[in-house]
Amino acid sequence: MVLFSSLTPVIIALMCVCLAALWSSKRKARRDRKVGTEDRVNSKPWADLRVDEAGSFLNDEPEVQHIPYSSQRYSEDEMIRRANEFYQLMNARRSVRFISEEAVPREVIDSIIRTAGTAPSGAHTEPWTFVVVQDPETKHQIREIIEEEEEVNYKKRMGKKWVSDLKQMRTHWIKPYLDTAPYLILVFKQIYGILPTGKKTHYYNEISVSISCGILLAALQNAGLVTVTTTPLNCGPRVRVLLGRPENEKLLLLLPVGYPAKDATVPDFKRKPLDEIMVSV
Amino acid sequence: MVLFSSLTPVIIALMCVCLAALWSSKRKARRDRKVGTEDRVNSKPWADLRVDEAGSFLNDEPEVQHIPYSSQRYSEDEMIRRANEFYQLMNARRSVRFISEEAVPREVIDSIIRTAGTAPSGAHTEPWTFVVVQDPETKHQIREIIEEEEEVNYKKRMGKKWVSDLKQMRTHWIKPYLDTAPYLILVFKQIYGILPTGKKTHYYNEISVSISCGILLAALQNAGLVTVTTTPLNCGPRVRVLLGRPENEKLLLLLPVGYPAKDATVPDFKRKPLDEIMVSV
Repeated sequence: MVLFSSLTPVIIALMCVCLAALWSSKRKARRDRKVGTEDRVNSKPWADLRVDEAGSFLNDEPEVQHIPYSSQRYSEDEMIRRANEFYQLMNARRSVRFISEEAVPREVIDSIIRTAGTAPSGAHTEPWTFVVVQDPETKHQIREIIEEEEEVNYKKRMGKKWVSDLKQMRTHWIKPYLDTAPYLILVFKQIYGILPTGKKTHYYNEISVSISCGILLAALQNAGLVTVTTTPLNCGPRVRVLLGRPENEKLLLLLPVGYPAKDATVPDFKRKPLDEIMVSV
Repeated sequence: MVLFSSLTPVIIALMCVCLAALWSSKRKARRDRKVGTEDRVNSKPWADLRVDEAGSFLNDEPEVQHIPYSSQRYSEDEMIRRANEFYQLMNARRSVRFISEEAVPREVIDSIIRTAGTAPSGAHTEPWTFVVVQDPETKHQIREIIEEEEEVNYKKRMGKKWVSDLKQMRTHWIKPYLDTAPYLILVFKQIYGILPTGKKTHYYNEISVSISCGILLAALQNAGLVTVTTTPLNCGPRVRVLLGRPENEKLLLLLPVGYPAKDATVPDFKRKPLDEIMVSV
């Protein structure tokens, strides 16, 4: 007892330390959560930046020479004509979920992937891998993975509102086009590159790969092929392993590609008029 | 003293409680940070999903009718020819940082923005706003904001490796093209929509807007115009306020658009060959 009483001041001091530590640690937790939220709002770029600052990535690009650039120059009338024709072509594009099993020349697909590969990318890292699946067995295995996960998504993960938003597109977890489409193009983003010297930062890799998919969609439409731009929720890891892709690649999009089925339908959507998407200053 | 000693057991009990709380709160902090990391790795879609589950967003889309779909069908030879021609056109595209001040017909720009607006988007939310800046004063104010922030980025935020990666492109924080280009296209992603009934979830908004930018780049190239795809780090909030855009819009990309300058140069990059970007199964 005497021992305790003589220790009491020490004990009280210790308590104060604990309380202080507890309080500051709670504040830190709040701060961490706050940063987390900003990440989601301000989008990916910071992720790369943070990685870079962490110093765990090495880049060893050589200095690159600069060369003169000149481009094809059209008359103003020609520009206007070309711009309007390209708009007409792209405006005819729709996301089509009913794809014919009819064969499509492989040469066309190769050319379209080459075209997607002309996209710009952060620090010219070209952080994309396009896996073109033609093998029926593999297509079916992909379908099984996606339908399993999608059923869970619809029933458990997505919440009523999302499901009701998708209802109008008649999307659900049964996806026959994954078997019928002659090609599945699985688009992977490389979240970092691998060099002999170590890992290489891929700045803005998700934005870069998405931009290349925009060019890919334009190329498909230009060739008279259809697709639907899908983001298989939660299927990435299993599909990556199935296709034997390395850990630095993450599945971003899956595009079933082919001719539209004879009985194909699309939701009767209208697009926003120009004055709803453009602001002039 | 007697009082203290009689209180000692209580004090010790309190200390234990503090220590336990401290420990569990530290663990929670660790857990929060871990989740944050997974967010960055697994990419944005979950952000939307989380928002949706949080139930703070309302969607009230009407059921949409489905209509028959048919597309332009080309012969196989025609498809191959069109695919290769489009590849040649897109492969001639380069990111150009030297832009002529020569005027470009506004009609062409409008048509190109219309074309970008044909992109697919999560649940057809069309979550994009394209601000086309032609006013010299506003262009210069944007340049001032960007050069201020970029200087800080290069000197403080980016870290040596990123700066050295960018060196080969001779990018730095002095960006004359922001004054000289006849148009600046500022691409905003709408992280949510606004309805009379409340907020509307914009699923995959960053991926959707990036895809539309890919189509926009294709349209610019098709018209014989050049740009450079820039992601002004940290400038978003100030530029958003300058342009009077609402809080649900975040700056994603800034594209200076025009004809290339007479003395324009580009880094002598090569693109990866097909077998480095495509895998066939």
